[in-house]
Amino acid sequence: MSKCERIVLASRPAGEPTPANFRLEEFDMPVAGEGELLLRTIWLSLDPYMRGRMSEAASYAQPVAVGAAMEGGTVSEVVASNNPKFAKGDFVMGRTGWQTYSVSNGVGMRKLDPAMGPISTAVGVLGMPGMTAYTGLLDIGQPKEGETVVVAAASGAVGSAVGQIAKIKGARAVGIAGGPEKCAYVKDTLGFDDCLDHRDPDLAAKLKAACPNGIDVYFENVGGAVFEAVFPLLNTFARVPVCGLIAHYNDFDAPPAPKWAGMMMRQVLVKRLTIRGFIVSDFAARHDDFLRDMSAWFRDGKLRHHESVSEGLASAPEAFIGMLKGKNFGKQLVQVGPDNSYDV
Amino acid sequence: MSKCERIVLASRPAGEPTPANFRLEEFDMPVAGEGELLLRTIWLSLDPYMRGRMSEAASYAQPVAVGAAMEGGTVSEVVASNNPKFAKGDFVMGRTGWQTYSVSNGVGMRKLDPAMGPISTAVGVLGMPGMTAYTGLLDIGQPKEGETVVVAAASGAVGSAVGQIAKIKGARAVGIAGGPEKCAYVKDTLGFDDCLDHRDPDLAAKLKAACPNGIDVYFENVGGAVFEAVFPLLNTFARVPVCGLIAHYNDFDAPPAPKWAGMMMRQVLVKRLTIRGFIVSDFAARHDDFLRDMSAWFRDGKLRHHESVSEGLASAPEAFIGMLKGKNFGKQLVQVGPDNSYDV
Repeated sequence: MSKCERIVLASRPAGEPTPANFRLEEFDMPVAGEGELLLRTIWLSLDPYMRGRMSEAASYAQPVAVGAAMEGGTVSEVVASNNPKFAKGDFVMGRTGWQTYSVSNGVGMRKLDPAMGPISTAVGVLGMPGMTAYTGLLDIGQPKEGETVVVAAASGAVGSAVGQIAKIKGARAVGIAGGPEKCAYVKDTLGFDDCLDHRDPDLAAKLKAACPNGIDVYFENVGGAVFEAVFPLLNTFARVPVCGLIAHYNDFDAPPAPKWAGMMMRQVLVKRLTIRGFIVSDFAARHDDFLRDMSAWFRDGKLRHHESVSEGLASAPEAFIGMLKGKNFGKQLVQVGPDNSYDV
Repeated sequence: MSKCERIVLASRPAGEPTPANFRLEEFDMPVAGEGELLLRTIWLSLDPYMRGRMSEAASYAQPVAVGAAMEGGTVSEVVASNNPKFAKGDFVMGRTGWQTYSVSNGVGMRKLDPAMGPISTAVGVLGMPGMTAYTGLLDIGQPKEGETVVVAAASGAVGSAVGQIAKIKGARAVGIAGGPEKCAYVKDTLGFDDCLDHRDPDLAAKLKAACPNGIDVYFENVGGAVFEAVFPLLNTFARVPVCGLIAHYNDFDAPPAPKWAGMMMRQVLVKRLTIRGFIVSDFAARHDDFLRDMSAWFRDGKLRHHESVSEGLASAPEAFIGMLKGKNFGKQLVQVGPDNSYDV
């Protein structure tokens, strides 16, 4: 019987994850039962939220159990189907995790049309990261024409979409990214009005210069020093959608220092800020709008994307650890198996 | 010529205001010019926001200049009128400040009908504090039936209205107030479901017990230790309208300690909290709704209020300083002159 591979959570990380927190295991090729599909993983999406799933701390989702396969969104090929809704050869997007093959009853699987674009975009610009950008920016941030939108991790899957949607809506988009190469890409290829290097010791002053009219929307996906530089520049009635805090994912045990909360809340009051956390599933009702708009913008060339591809399931832990450190460029994917969608 | 009195800002406070920051001055009785009114102050409202006006720090309004009369909402009698919209003997609500007489061109003055209720309520439950409670709770907090609403300073002008409106809307109302007498009033007279003493060293545990289903709306008007006790109990999708931070009004110079912002923002994300600052004038468009609903509730006995009255303009500084320390009980007023509205 042929063997499959999966990567399981070997142990919970203390601070930054290390390769020792993961373990590659073999398992027997599963069989699709009554009503089920056998799926071959092609693309595995790596996303910052996965760091949260590795810890036991209460969050908006259950943690991955130690010894269980890491969770994740994937694009797969149906290799066998006992489910009338799916046929052998179909491509589907689902959450089948860090493994080469999986079995599903079809619930939560979305069939993809390879004619609409590369199937990998179903876990990127036309998938969860794109929808996070779309709903967080439009439903919470609500940028108006001429307003200033700032987003960090601007070359990443979410941030790159945030700034481009802001531009489509007539706002000024200022990105923050790690290093001159990423900043050049954000400005020159993605068309942001400006992009600053978060490693610049003078970030606060440069951000102020790049936002002469202050900041109306700060799309928060990193936290840390970027948040500190942004916060004083927020305008009255600014909106702060919060979808992630990658700078804090490894250091959540810091002791409370309530005085700072007072300072922060004073600004919330004085400037009548709106700070609102969200996860993309809160806006599930907007999925059709998202797909309609984003796929149109994508086809029209208004929405560009970039993929960093790591080869083979075994490379996933290292690629994931690197992504948390900002080593990726654009959407981080693992190519788990060959993509034969172009042959269709 | 007869003399009037006013209280001016003598100096800016460092920390808590003291009597030395105020000075009582005499001035000549003013004369109403073309289109103007001469007003005799009856009721002066004392409100926590006035502490902000005493400092130079940037806020949502200009500070009071040193040497100028303290600002404040008042109820006055028109004693002379050269303005066709107002007649001698009318009662008006306006912002004429800490003085016994004033002149106005009528802009921003609202005529009061003494038959609708005591005219002092125009700066209390049917005035700015009531409208702060109404709009902050209903437009931002949006309590649903069966949800839990927590408000601090629950015996005060804003907090007492917040809890009673929450009850009218079918929510559970839990107050926090200073001392057993206030707590008993909040529960027994105002009809809150529970009220806790913020001086109780065991506040966090008692609040948890009083909110067995967590907190869905926290109406933030104090900050400090109460905020710290409330924050861990906020439910997923909780809303935090922020209209004041009385605990911090004297200590805004604390140095930032960014780690706490990370902790706080993590909860914003995980629980998808909405934290939104507001001041009552942001909801000016809701004034008619407010007056219609609140005056009906007031007439129907669903909305009770309590006034702490300090006698004479000269008593205002001490009453104000006491209010910032929580010494008042209900809405804090200064009776500047006799209220003859009952004779009308």
